[in-house]
Parts: sequence; structure tokens; C-alpha cells
Amino acid sequence: MIKYSDVLDAKNRIDKYIYKTPLIKSGVLSNEHRNVYLKLDNQQNQRCTKLRGAFSKLTSLSENDIKKGISVVSSGNHGIAISYAASVLGIDNVNVYIPKPTPKTKVDKIKSFGVNIHLIGENYDEAYSIGKSIIAEKGELFIDSSSDVEVIAGQGTAGIETFEDLSDIDVVLVPIGGGGILTGISLAAKHFNPQVEVIGVQTAACPAMVAAVRDNVFYGEYPTEDSICESLVGGVGDIPFEMAKECIDDFLVVEEEDIKKAIKLLALEEKTIAEAGGAISVGALIINPELFKGKNVVAVITGGNIDKELLEDIICSK
Amino acid sequence: MIKYSDVLDAKNRIDKYIYKTPLIKSGVLSNEHRNVYLKLDNQQNQRCTKLRGAFSKLTSLSENDIKKGISVVSSGNHGIAISYAASVLGIDNVNVYIPKPTPKTKVDKIKSFGVNIHLIGENYDEAYSIGKSIIAEKGELFIDSSSDVEVIAGQGTAGIETFEDLSDIDVVLVPIGGGGILTGISLAAKHFNPQVEVIGVQTAACPAMVAAVRDNVFYGEYPTEDSICESLVGGVGDIPFEMAKECIDDFLVVEEEDIKKAIKLLALEEKTIAEAGGAISVGALIINPELFKGKNVVAVITGGNIDKELLEDIICSK
Repeated sequence: MIKYSDVLDAKNRIDKYIYKTPLIKSGVLSNEHRNVYLKLDNQQNQRCTKLRGAFSKLTSLSENDIKKGISVVSSGNHGIAISYAASVLGIDNVNVYIPKPTPKTKVDKIKSFGVNIHLIGENYDEAYSIGKSIIAEKGELFIDSSSDVEVIAGQGTAGIETFEDLSDIDVVLVPIGGGGILTGISLAAKHFNPQVEVIGVQTAACPAMVAAVRDNVFYGEYPTEDSICESLVGGVGDIPFEMAKECIDDFLVVEEEDIKKAIKLLALEEKTIAEAGGAISVGALIINPELFKGKNVVAVITGGNIDKELLEDIICSK
Repeated sequence: MIKYSDVLDAKNRIDKYIYKTPLIKSGVLSNEHRNVYLKLDNQQNQRCTKLRGAFSKLTSLSENDIKKGISVVSSGNHGIAISYAASVLGIDNVNVYIPKPTPKTKVDKIKSFGVNIHLIGENYDEAYSIGKSIIAEKGELFIDSSSDVEVIAGQGTAGIETFEDLSDIDVVLVPIGGGGILTGISLAAKHFNPQVEVIGVQTAACPAMVAAVRDNVFYGEYPTEDSICESLVGGVGDIPFEMAKECIDDFLVVEEEDIKKAIKLLALEEKTIAEAGGAISVGALIINPELFKGKNVVAVITGGNIDKELLEDIICSK
């Protein structure tokens, strides 16, 4: 459905708009058994990997597409990414549908990019459902965050950069929410090393892709427990689900408490701030210090947009 | 003594080895009066602007120079930067002279780059003095961190990047220890905008350059009170002192407590980890919210190598 060449095309379109982010070796996660490297895409512009997908999508559109109006349903990284990218590209006809209970600071952040804000629905699922029907009625172009070829191809550029910096990689750990970022990065990783193991990491609060693959059922929605990983909860994307056999070699599931440990370790030891959904692949390594013996392992950190009170609580908890 | 063309030459030599670091607009430091941007060179490779100077110097050397052996006296960013750059460039004859009381973790970090470690002297001044005479006796090439043309030119590349990202800059705030980083960045800034105001920021614990310029006396050593800014304490470099009239338009002096506030603000609000000496220019903006009315201000953040216990203490103090 998506090929490596799509990722490469995306890279050529977006390279001038995004940061090439660092790949650093982690002293504290490496040990005598394994070398661990961190792809710090939490230090991407707007602090999220999704910016890659946003630029990839918006630079792929025709003038006719743009004239229809661009629309997304998101109060998080996808909304920030599309809004920011549109402002850079001079696209001014952008609508962001946001659930009513979203904190004002988040709404204001997205608003600051000059997009039209529509507050609808009492939660994300409601906003998504109402938003999609309004968008369809208006004939606007809807951009999904994890089921769009160009968006997924854009996220994959983080994988190309990783292999440009380090060719000898055995394992890549990538967070899974809808699965778009993993799918893109996996296509790139398997191009550079067909033997590479790509492992999807999910929160125990919402292991939707684990269940979807196990049950071989597309869970477009999925129940979630309380979670600090707002970028990872909810159902899976249809393209990532259909490509799971090809792109996901295994899963690791991480408890929320261990994700907090990962955020704290990244801040204090590696001097980088990650959001919960971005730090989760490090959580999988903390609780499995003996896993991946003799391997070169890359953990992809996908976002750094964490609420300041939560960040302070996590760093200062004993 | 140093010209903009030296900075440009350095940029051409080092661009492939260093990161182009982000320039971001700070929401929390900007207000109705001013726009504040942060040059996040704390996110540079090895987390320090000094890496630019190290690559600039090492790529400028002849084979004969390198054969003599490269030597530095430093337990901090200069030592890390030279050692790392040498390892990347395949230069294996590097000696790092380090004061005996330096914590083992710092010594091990520098050692990990494959350099020769020499523990000498009971403090930095003693190590510097003993080290320099050993180096002279052995005929090794000594690289000073703030009085070397190529080192200073290398640091200045952070200034070129800043103006490439934002041409309309009125004020640039740069931390001063020896003064090398400010001197390089000022040369670049004044090339792009001859009217730009370049302000040196010093800790109240050791305002050596403030005193040197006021007294018109070269203070190669200077008394220091207790300070968390280990990268800023001590005397001034001779080149930065001689170029101060040309490069420094004004000073701001920041108390240590306000530097801690800057570290905390950068971590929690801007999601970036800075060391004390790197965060100090933000300290100057926090305590002066009405300064620079109507101006576009850039604060350069020069390093992120902060001790984890200190970082935790600062973030978690009320």
C-alpha cells in the first residue's frame, strides 16, 4: 500500500522544512550486552515527528485540493503539526476540529498559527465523529493522522535519517498509537536492513494494535484506561493495520508507571524532554535490561509536548 | 584580530560535523513589548557550543601540528568537545589535563573518547598552570578554550545559523566566561546587522569581563564565589578582552538564584535542558521583563551538560 519510494519522495519534499534530529548513544541504557541509541525526534520542530507527516501531506496537494479547505480533528500533535506546516507554506484555509473540553492553552497554541478552530463534541471520539461528518458535508479535504499515505510516508523520513547516521542497526523500537509513525519508519528501516526487527511499543492502558493483530480484527476504536499517553490512546489506523504483518515484527507493552520512569530518565540522564507517548520505547528498555543481548538497538522518541505540571510531577516524584 | 571571514571559513570546515540547532520563539519570555527567540545550542552534539570551536580548530591543523600531540586543560565542555571531535576525525594523540578532584563520571566521559587523561593539580587554576608547563616542555600543541582564533571562529558559526533563520534581530544575549563564544557570535551578528546590540551575560559570582572592561585591565584570573556556572567562572581570554570594545555593547549580570529560575523555566516551559552557564542569558530576561521594548531578542543557550542531581534539585525546588 505504501512503499519505501513514497518515504524517499516525502524526504525530498520536506527536507528543507524540518530538522534533521540527533541520534545519540545512551550511556545509561547501553550495557555490556547491548548498545542503545536514541533518535531524538522529540527535538523536531514543534517537538513532534508528526510535523514530518504534515509537511509531506501538505506539499503533496494540488491547488484544487487546497482550495477545498484542509481539515483535521485533533487537539494534539497532529493538529499542531498541520497548523504550523500550513502557516509556513502559506496555506490559510485550514480548519481544526477540537473536542470542547480541551485545555485553553492547547487551543490557543493551535489558534496562534492562524487556523480556524471549531470546538465540537464532549470527547475525542465524539469530536472525530461529528467533525468528519461536517467536513464531508462541506467538501473539505480531511487529513487523517494515521491512515494517510503521504502522512505515513512523511513520518518514515525519521527512519531514513536514523540509518544515514548508523547503518548497523538490529532492532528499532517505535511507539504505536494509530500506528502511522511505526509504519513509515519500518518501511525505511527494512529498506536499509531487511533483517532489522521493528518492535511496536504500546501502553498497557490501550494496547489496541496488539489486540488487533492478535485477533486479526481492525479496531478503529478501542477502550482505554486512564493514560498519560494522550498521543497513543484510541484505535488503530487502517493502513497501519493492513501493513502490520509486513511492518511489525513484535510488540512490547509498557505500564504507565514505567513510562514515567522513562520520562524522568530521559530528562535527568539524557537531558532531553519527552512526552509520555514519545518516551514509551525507553520504558520498554528500562524494564528489560537484559533484552536484545549483542544487539544495536534504536529507540525512537517521537514527541516532546508534555504538560508542564505533569513533567514536574514526574521528575520530582521519588 | 579575528574577522567575520574566519567565522565563515570555520563554518565551511565544520558544517558536516555539527548539528544546525533550532531557533525557537519563546512564548513565555515574549510579551506585548518584545519577541524573544532561543538559539538552542544546548542541543548541539555533545550538548555544547564548544564542539563548534573544537571541530574548527582540529580541522585547521596541519599534519605536523597533529604529530606534536594535541593538549587541553579542561574537565568540562572544552575537554569533551576536543576529545569527541578528535575521535570523529581519527586524531589519536590527544592529552587532556584534568584537576584531580574532578568527579569520576566526568573523567570517564572524556576517557571514553580514547584520549590520554592526566590528573594534575588540586583545582582548575593549579591544573592549568602545571598542565601548561608540562605541555610546553613536551612540545605538544596547546589549545586554549577562549584565546584561540580558530576556536573562537568556530563558536561564531552559531551566530551565522541564527541570522540565517531570522534576519530581523535587534539584540543578542550571549553568556560570557572566557568570552570566546560571545566574540565569535558577535562577529557573525555584526556582519549581518551592524546595528545589532550584543550583550554579554555574566554570573554575579564571577563578573570577570565586566570588571576587565570597566578597569581596562586584562584579568586572566579572577576570584569567584560559589557558583553553579562551572563553564563561566575564572578569568577572561586575551583575544576576547582585546576585542571587547568591538564585540560587546553592554553587560547584564545575573544572580545565581535567577540562573536556577532560568534552568527551571527552560525545562518546564520550553522543554529543553540547559546547564547553568548555558541558561544564564534567559535569567537576564526573566528578571528584566520590560527590557528590550519593541525589540527582537535572541538568547543563546550554549550548553546542556548539567549534573543530574543539580538539575533535579532545581526543577523540584519550590
